[in-house]
Amino acid sequence: MELLERRIRESGVVKPGQVLKVDSFLNHQMDVALFREMARAWGREFADRPVNKVMTIEASGIGLAAIVGDELGLPVVFAKKAQSINLDGSVHTAQITSYTHKRDYDVIVSKRYIGPDDHVLIIDDFLANGCAMEGLIAICQQAGATIEGIGIAIEKGFQQGGALLRERGFKVCSLAIVESMDHETGRIEFR
Amino acid sequence: MELLERRIRESGVVKPGQVLKVDSFLNHQMDVALFREMARAWGREFADRPVNKVMTIEASGIGLAAIVGDELGLPVVFAKKAQSINLDGSVHTAQITSYTHKRDYDVIVSKRYIGPDDHVLIIDDFLANGCAMEGLIAICQQAGATIEGIGIAIEKGFQQGGALLRERGFKVCSLAIVESMDHETGRIEFR
Repeated sequence: MELLERRIRESGVVKPGQVLKVDSFLNHQMDVALFREMARAWGREFADRPVNKVMTIEASGIGLAAIVGDELGLPVVFAKKAQSINLDGSVHTAQITSYTHKRDYDVIVSKRYIGPDDHVLIIDDFLANGCAMEGLIAICQQAGATIEGIGIAIEKGFQQGGALLRERGFKVCSLAIVESMDHETGRIEFR
Repeated sequence: MELLERRIRESGVVKPGQVLKVDSFLNHQMDVALFREMARAWGREFADRPVNKVMTIEASGIGLAAIVGDELGLPVVFAKKAQSINLDGSVHTAQITSYTHKRDYDVIVSKRYIGPDDHVLIIDDFLANGCAMEGLIAICQQAGATIEGIGIAIEKGFQQGGALLRERGFKVCSLAIVESMDHETGRIEFR
């Protein structure tokens, strides 16, 4: 998606350790007008799929998923990280590893909000090694839900997450795929 | 707001300890069509204020704030809980206590996304004792930003947060104010 790639080139900052900072528009400050264009792009991409629910994981996927839910007229469910006393016991869970925060945590979705009748479009801001995504997929599978597609804002194409998901037959639509980036020059190459 | 009160009566569950579970539509599964009506209500309420930024705190405020940002055509900033390696050092912080999660944590907003030129509408899903809100207010004050208003989905009117904020002169618009609730009968009274 040209618009997103341009925005990443203009506002993204490449940090050591292959970190791409996009917190001016994606995951700290949120440019919801851009989110709307992204939601429309995913809407076109998954128009042939019988999606009835949008799913994401807290926290930075929630804003994107809310706009996608609004665009498609669908409810949104966000998976929670770690047990909360406001969730009762009846939950699907998966354990995932965050490389960003360097720890393991549980991802939780109430059994009431994901089930065998659900046809899910998963939305997230980043796809790198795919650990968070594996957690969401595991939860959908536990619930007997159908994963109709996966919409990603920025995929790190030099990490394995996207390739592994596509090999397994998932329809993955990443709006920008970073092929390489260099924190010394600030250069970002897209696929 | 009649629509929200009706939804709370229909779908909210009162739990022991004055917990109101609204995770079927507000803070786990999100009814974004309802969020849109809520955003319009806040838009009318704060129409006379020169708001240029919407602010909230992760995680459950983000979906609401994204729809409010979309409705008002404004960028949204969400405060993060605890230091993330993807935020660099230049941040405003405040420490808050979560009674839900029974711990203290830091709330952080990058200095780049809140400053003296900002006129902020703060949005959150719940207002009870007001601890999270105090953190957001402290951050706005550190930044020299003007708080134009505070939009809350559900205020627990029997806790002190809302009263204290109004005493200090903040314009608080809570779309539903719960006066009392009883987990044995399930009865919820609104102000």
